Amino acid sequence: MTDPIEVFVPAHVTAFFSVHRATDPAQTGSRGVGLALSDGIRVTSTPADTTRVTLDGDETTIDAVERVTDTFDVAAHIQLDSDVPLGAGFGVSGAMALGTAFGLNVISDHDRTENQLVRLAHVAEVEAGTGLGDVVAQHRGGIPIRVEPGAPEYGVLDGIPGGPRVEYLALGELSTEAVLSGDVERLNRAGSTALERLRAEPTLDRLMDESHRFATATELLPPDIQGIIDDVADAGGTAAMAMLGQTVFTLGRGLTDAGYSPAIATIDHGGVRYPDGDGSVFYSVGDDP
Amino acid sequence: MTDPIEVFVPAHVTAFFSVHRATDPAQTGSRGVGLALSDGIRVTSTPADTTRVTLDGDETTIDAVERVTDTFDVAAHIQLDSDVPLGAGFGVSGAMALGTAFGLNVISDHDRTENQLVRLAHVAEVEAGTGLGDVVAQHRGGIPIRVEPGAPEYGVLDGIPGGPRVEYLALGELSTEAVLSGDVERLNRAGSTALERLRAEPTLDRLMDESHRFATATELLPPDIQGIIDDVADAGGTAAMAMLGQTVFTLGRGLTDAGYSPAIATIDHGGVRYPDGDGSVFYSVGDDP
Repeated sequence: MTDPIEVFVPAHVTAFFSVHRATDPAQTGSRGVGLALSDGIRVTSTPADTTRVTLDGDETTIDAVERVTDTFDVAAHIQLDSDVPLGAGFGVSGAMALGTAFGLNVISDHDRTENQLVRLAHVAEVEAGTGLGDVVAQHRGGIPIRVEPGAPEYGVLDGIPGGPRVEYLALGELSTEAVLSGDVERLNRAGSTALERLRAEPTLDRLMDESHRFATATELLPPDIQGIIDDVADAGGTAAMAMLGQTVFTLGRGLTDAGYSPAIATIDHGGVRYPDGDGSVFYSVGDDP
Repeated sequence: MTDPIEVFVPAHVTAFFSVHRATDPAQTGSRGVGLALSDGIRVTSTPADTTRVTLDGDETTIDAVERVTDTFDVAAHIQLDSDVPLGAGFGVSGAMALGTAFGLNVISDHDRTENQLVRLAHVAEVEAGTGLGDVVAQHRGGIPIRVEPGAPEYGVLDGIPGGPRVEYLALGELSTEAVLSGDVERLNRAGSTALERLRAEPTLDRLMDESHRFATATELLPPDIQGIIDDVADAGGTAAMAMLGQTVFTLGRGLTDAGYSPAIATIDHGGVRYPDGDGSVFYSVGDDP
């Protein structure tokens, strides 16, 4: 097995969340809700003499990815390509860890289950301090509700049915590590209330209302983000901030109607997958019958 | 809301299983493994004065679907279209129940979560006696392992990573109701052993070996199905029977290599979804920005 293996992982915009820490990183995580996007991250793993990681062609170091590569006994070149910016609230580091786990599984012994690979990436992301809930959500796809936190053996997921158009504007970074290592009490109160309300009325309207309320209540909104959210409200829509990044998102045409030129995506229901096949002897869809 | 809502649900071929009954139909189900296929079932729900169900244009009655429509307080015309035959081991009745639940949710109050809709369809299918594990697998997509039986709040799912080519030949029906209401002890022993072995070595090779072994050990194989499976083995492949139907399936090119002209599909990772949108005010991907 020396062919490159490409893995697609959807970007994940967290709308609101609360933090749940435990001694075991697999039991650590977040509750909340988010959107898995048709825009995402491609991770290509190729067997190599030494392990190295490149992002859009440049050598890089990503803690969560390194923690994943360390657990496999194969060396590989991990190529990362992203439709969305890093550090802007799209769960890119989690996606990279997850895509690396699914890729290295193929080029090593190809003998782990999805839950084992999701757990591995979740733990790597938690230990790196760069995220708490993106990995499990990205694996599920859709509009995942993280009902209980943690890796698959502990976490409980649900979902809001639907596949709306999503618009987003990414303005810049916000350090997840800084926010998560700070005082999270206010954030947890706001996140728990939002989740309770959404579960009582699990609709897309309620999702956007609670997302907007959470962003306001947690006082995480930079002034320029607040300005855009206000513009969308003035145009009759509801926008919120991606947690955690300087990114505004709406469902439908909220940003467009307010005069912005956002990126446009849909909801991705597929979660993690191998778009060009998993390299197994069984894969040959493109062959003539 | 009077527009028709289309829901796609992947067909699900069960490779092997064991039966687990409980007083509560939500806790009743099966353990085992199967394949969610890119071929599937489309369920179109349109508000109407009285509820009626049509399959490929003809009026019909499907117990699991009726049990779902009975729980909603809207009347609708449910149009069913299937890429695969009924009663041949593709989980069509489960898919129809699931697609009906997701469709009626949209044209009624649009306020249930995915787990609630999956539970509803699972219970309908169990009570109708037409299936035990297809609904939860079809919702997940991919190559789902049913680790623990039952609806989302009870069941535990995992998956084999990968997206191989799947070939299948559907020869005819086999009554799920007749087999499930008969003596299932031998079947349960064979299914439990197969699952144990697959979980110890969760690979596609092991999946096919255990599927083939299960089909043989349960003595459910009609002679013509056995003949095709032998032909595939002679050509160097591994085939098995879809549980429960007179359908032979292989991964890769097994049936083609043995000289047959099978239907060809891939693995569907998306599970249940609305290909043309969910009719919400937020849906307008096709619009110009």
